[in-house]
Amino acid sequence: MTTIVVPPVIPTPAEDADALLKAFQGWGTDERTVIAVLAHRDATQRKKIRMAYEENYNENFIQRLQSELSGHFERAMYHWVLDPVERQAVMANTATRCIHEDYPVIVEIACVNSSPELVAVKRAYHVLYKCSLEEDVAARATGNLRSLLLALVSTYRYDGDEVNDALAKSEAKILHETVMNSSETDHGELIRIVGTRSRAQLNATFGWFRDEHGSSITKALHCGADPTGYSHALRTSVRCISDANKYFVKVLKNAMHKSGTDEDSLTRVIVMHAEKDLKSIKDAFQKRASVSLEQSIAKDTSGDYKSFLMALLGKSGI
Amino acid sequence: MTTIVVPPVIPTPAEDADALLKAFQGWGTDERTVIAVLAHRDATQRKKIRMAYEENYNENFIQRLQSELSGHFERAMYHWVLDPVERQAVMANTATRCIHEDYPVIVEIACVNSSPELVAVKRAYHVLYKCSLEEDVAARATGNLRSLLLALVSTYRYDGDEVNDALAKSEAKILHETVMNSSETDHGELIRIVGTRSRAQLNATFGWFRDEHGSSITKALHCGADPTGYSHALRTSVRCISDANKYFVKVLKNAMHKSGTDEDSLTRVIVMHAEKDLKSIKDAFQKRASVSLEQSIAKDTSGDYKSFLMALLGKSGI
Repeated sequence: MTTIVVPPVIPTPAEDADALLKAFQGWGTDERTVIAVLAHRDATQRKKIRMAYEENYNENFIQRLQSELSGHFERAMYHWVLDPVERQAVMANTATRCIHEDYPVIVEIACVNSSPELVAVKRAYHVLYKCSLEEDVAARATGNLRSLLLALVSTYRYDGDEVNDALAKSEAKILHETVMNSSETDHGELIRIVGTRSRAQLNATFGWFRDEHGSSITKALHCGADPTGYSHALRTSVRCISDANKYFVKVLKNAMHKSGTDEDSLTRVIVMHAEKDLKSIKDAFQKRASVSLEQSIAKDTSGDYKSFLMALLGKSGI
Repeated sequence: MTTIVVPPVIPTPAEDADALLKAFQGWGTDERTVIAVLAHRDATQRKKIRMAYEENYNENFIQRLQSELSGHFERAMYHWVLDPVERQAVMANTATRCIHEDYPVIVEIACVNSSPELVAVKRAYHVLYKCSLEEDVAARATGNLRSLLLALVSTYRYDGDEVNDALAKSEAKILHETVMNSSETDHGELIRIVGTRSRAQLNATFGWFRDEHGSSITKALHCGADPTGYSHALRTSVRCISDANKYFVKVLKNAMHKSGTDEDSLTRVIVMHAEKDLKSIKDAFQKRASVSLEQSIAKDTSGDYKSFLMALLGKSGI
């Protein structure tokens, strides 16, 4: 469920575009107005504002917005005003450029979207970059990390609920044997299973793993030094598939660690999920951290960036 | 372009269904009527006939049709009356069950369809088999054959015309080095390139290969003993991507070899392409074999099977 608050009566896209132009003009930007307008409009409304702005003022809306804002606030707002599908394509592309560090973004997009949603992201990727997400992932990653990420982004996974119990049992055995073997050279079968089976089937397999071996596969995959990123990417994909909410709570908690705030991760989770399932991530966070997500973020952020995230988390714009 | 001939005025689906019921009833089936009706209706019309039949006579149309016909004629008609997308899903599934022999079917479906067409086939596969084409391919093939087929069926290839010449040149070099090395252990990069790059990009790469090395990659891939099927599957995919018409002409020619007719391949090409591009395959065949496809097929087949193929190739039903 979405967390953003859209007022019951909203101005026309042209009126919103006009308010934004006024906020951009003059000495310094009126960031409060930018937030008051854009954080309280849904994706369709934001698209219409962007179109009205470009038609009426004959300039690229996103470029102007970016030039008026700065820092984490600018990056968050830039991603926010993109169409949600286009935004994921942009984020995936950015991640392919530094794939040995930014693979979690790719794993999240591949594992959390439904199959038709993932195809829509890949279609947007074609339009934006004149190539496929698959070829960029394949050309920029290597070894097991490549095999895993490529399987995750490529497969049109079955989204149904049917489960084959005998298969789950036999594949849980394969996963256990692979995980127990410390070498990463023979991970082909494991990557095949995690990369192609349906979420329901995989959760049954992970269930068998836990029942048979007394500990979850996520725990068994706990990895030390990880020079290639593969082990961590594998663990991330298993966690996204098992319980995406729990995974995102962990990302948020890590992003607001004592050692400093990871604004990129914070922005990513809030912006990508605000209009989708941020409500349930918030609930899971509260349960797990015994403090609300809003309180945690308010403590770790400041200025316009903070105001914007608060608005996306459900603070009314009025 | 389609080769089937649909009369300018056709009966209603209920009338066609009635004619088919009459053809099924009594002593022996009236195959001529079955062909006269079904070979001269397009996919939408056939679907409506199937629905009208099932609604009016309360029995499964395809099962009845199969029970009334036999041999190659039955198999061809069975595939013909399926929805074209569903038909490819059925053919792909059958091929996964004997994947070390039937991989050409999978390669054709993966390499000849556009990316949205391939997704439609994979969606139909989900509906029919409650699992993904990817997981069946991955679970039933092994080694390089698995890696190649999985990349082909998984990737949502970029369908645009843009070509990066520098990339084509560098990847042609990789292909050449891999092909010249007789070992098949290090084909990862080759599979990555063939499995993920766009058709336009690959054709530029194959062009560079030919220009630099004086012979086409298809010739360079000419393979002797091929126990796993990988070499042949690789060559098939390169040929489907380079020139699908030329490839299908070759399949048809091989299917009508002196040593005997391969009806499965013959049926597959005719039924799968009749409503799509059989016209251009026919033209290419005529050019290459100096005899028309109709003449060749007429010489190699007989009975209802022959009449049916002739009808699909453009013989009028009147």
